[in-house]
Amino acid sequence: MTHHSNSTQIPGTTLDLAAATRQSLRPAAASLPESGIIELVNYGRTRDGLIPLWVGEGDRPTPSFICDAATRALNDGQTFYTWQRGIPELRQSLANYYQRHFGVDPGVDRMIVTGSGMQGMMESLQATTGSNDEVVVISPVWPNIYACIHLQEATARSVALRLSDAGWTLDMDELFTACNDRTRAIYVNSPGNPSGWMMPEEQMLALRDFARQRGLWILSDEVYSKFVFSERKTRSFLQICDPNDRLIVCNSFSKNWAMTGWRVGWVVIPSDLGQVFENLVQYNTSGVPEFLQRGCIAAVDQGDDFLSQQLENALNGRQIVTSRLAELPNVVFTEPEGAFYLFFRVDGETDCMALAKQLVDRANVGVAPGSAFGLGGTGYLRICFLASRSTLEQAMDRLVTTLSAWQV
Amino acid sequence: MTHHSNSTQIPGTTLDLAAATRQSLRPAAASLPESGIIELVNYGRTRDGLIPLWVGEGDRPTPSFICDAATRALNDGQTFYTWQRGIPELRQSLANYYQRHFGVDPGVDRMIVTGSGMQGMMESLQATTGSNDEVVVISPVWPNIYACIHLQEATARSVALRLSDAGWTLDMDELFTACNDRTRAIYVNSPGNPSGWMMPEEQMLALRDFARQRGLWILSDEVYSKFVFSERKTRSFLQICDPNDRLIVCNSFSKNWAMTGWRVGWVVIPSDLGQVFENLVQYNTSGVPEFLQRGCIAAVDQGDDFLSQQLENALNGRQIVTSRLAELPNVVFTEPEGAFYLFFRVDGETDCMALAKQLVDRANVGVAPGSAFGLGGTGYLRICFLASRSTLEQAMDRLVTTLSAWQV
Repeated sequence: MTHHSNSTQIPGTTLDLAAATRQSLRPAAASLPESGIIELVNYGRTRDGLIPLWVGEGDRPTPSFICDAATRALNDGQTFYTWQRGIPELRQSLANYYQRHFGVDPGVDRMIVTGSGMQGMMESLQATTGSNDEVVVISPVWPNIYACIHLQEATARSVALRLSDAGWTLDMDELFTACNDRTRAIYVNSPGNPSGWMMPEEQMLALRDFARQRGLWILSDEVYSKFVFSERKTRSFLQICDPNDRLIVCNSFSKNWAMTGWRVGWVVIPSDLGQVFENLVQYNTSGVPEFLQRGCIAAVDQGDDFLSQQLENALNGRQIVTSRLAELPNVVFTEPEGAFYLFFRVDGETDCMALAKQLVDRANVGVAPGSAFGLGGTGYLRICFLASRSTLEQAMDRLVTTLSAWQV
Repeated sequence: MTHHSNSTQIPGTTLDLAAATRQSLRPAAASLPESGIIELVNYGRTRDGLIPLWVGEGDRPTPSFICDAATRALNDGQTFYTWQRGIPELRQSLANYYQRHFGVDPGVDRMIVTGSGMQGMMESLQATTGSNDEVVVISPVWPNIYACIHLQEATARSVALRLSDAGWTLDMDELFTACNDRTRAIYVNSPGNPSGWMMPEEQMLALRDFARQRGLWILSDEVYSKFVFSERKTRSFLQICDPNDRLIVCNSFSKNWAMTGWRVGWVVIPSDLGQVFENLVQYNTSGVPEFLQRGCIAAVDQGDDFLSQQLENALNGRQIVTSRLAELPNVVFTEPEGAFYLFFRVDGETDCMALAKQLVDRANVGVAPGSAFGLGGTGYLRICFLASRSTLEQAMDRLVTTLSAWQV
């Protein structure tokens, strides 16, 4: 504490107090990283005419049949506290979704509606992982998972996918070796953001057996499980696990039904843990707005056609982006098997944040720097291709022009 | 691990795996308490004709001018990811709210929109309190705060208000003595749920000075700060603190504007901590739906008249409830100075959960058991009086009839 002559009744000057206040933050909060994607968005968001393909959402607003259902419920006065686990009708719709799309019946009791997929993952970590624990993360991956683990005072241990002529692959021995006595959970995102990697069924089975043997949780982030371009049939750990396995599947309305701005997701939990997750919902957000859940019911029950359109758009987007980038000999990538991103690198470029900023400056296109996605991502760029044909074609024209004349 | 002959590829039977899975939960999650209020709600929710006054919400749905603003935004396609701190217009409206209602100008930079008041409090704890820390809580109080602290692997240390002829009072020496080297924060809810207690200005000043001296955070839960029946002028710590003090004020749209079901709240944070709270929002919920925030703007900007009606309803409710219970010599309470609850006890009754269940059975009225609210609450009952005159009169007829013939 310094002693300035202009100090008021506050000990020290305002500046002193500000510094002291900052130092009083909990270390795990003060050291949270800023999203590397947001850093780039902040760099480019005011550029005139910039084409933003940096965040993980399509360019279509939520379909009106979903909005209308929410509006009816809102006007009907469904504005009170509601079921902490989610309204029974929505949980039933979600159980039906798994029967229809994955051929499994997890049952309504295992469905918990959450205030975003993000919040579902946070609650899954709260349920499984505390201070001094470790979580093994298959990377490069959606960056928020690292920060979530950090906020639990736990440690994330990354095992990186590798890109070769065989596409993105995971070395299972590396994965298992990364698990130690402190490991509580393994986080898997398949289809993967940003890589588009899909875990093969034999690896899913091996992971299941390993997790059972070692008493580990599988945290399976399946938000892209309907965005699959390959012939793989096993797309959810629900298809190969027992209702009592240490498995939590996280999902979201965001990607399937163009509802990123609704902040509603769900988790599928083991049988008999309903009260634990009800408590977690109670003490985190105290539930999800009932009138939003009415919109979500419309999405799940009447949204299969829209979902097919989304997949078709993603397929078209993938074709546009990959065919144009294939023209460039200095660009390296593999065709993604799922999700809606292309993760690519430019030969000789290692500082992907600098590269992404240069693409803002020179091409007026926003793509996300791979360094934001953790181990194995540095040097890469992520482009979201769930966008209209005209937007993507214009963006690719600019990128190809810029990159074909590229001087390192 | 037992060895049953009918075991499948799963090690042990299904039952074994279920037990093992439950034991694999993080201890802080597995030991979370169920809400004591919800336990009673579950006991009585299916009773025909029951009058529910057990939860903390009024019986009016959200006013249509608020719903309409949200609907317009929804139909306008505001369904994408948005600002993590809240949309700038809403944050400005909230800053204006403090100028209009409290005569202070915290400034837009200190406003963070959160996915419910509950979530705002969770984020405030995440920012300040971690494993092995302690938080001093002035009780009896809103029970969720205890569970939130527990989920941070921290310890809540209660200091109880006492009811005497002078009403509910807090012994500041007791409060200060409860703080030790591990204490990170003091949680204050004034006006208080369930007691209706308001912290006098001289105690607010003493707490502010003590917190500054000891480097402690004040977590001020001010969701009832517009529900004040007394003449007290100082209703927010924002009125007496510096922008850089270790102060986080939590608030919610729920109570002021009949929006419990919207799950939107806000926190007012110290200057310069915007990035820290932006990160916390990012990694907990990734923001609040933009179209809901448009409704919130309508609430704050055009909702002062509705807020006045809410206060008038609460005043009328208080008058009905207190005048009827005053007829009963075996009922003990003080007039609440704020919020919209009466916290009372029945002479000779100490098991308030049993009593609350008996009132469901014999009076068909739902009130909350005081034991749910922690130290100092056992033996009491909480009745929510933000309800229509006819509902309250009918409920009080039933309660007075039952309690006047009460046999312990």
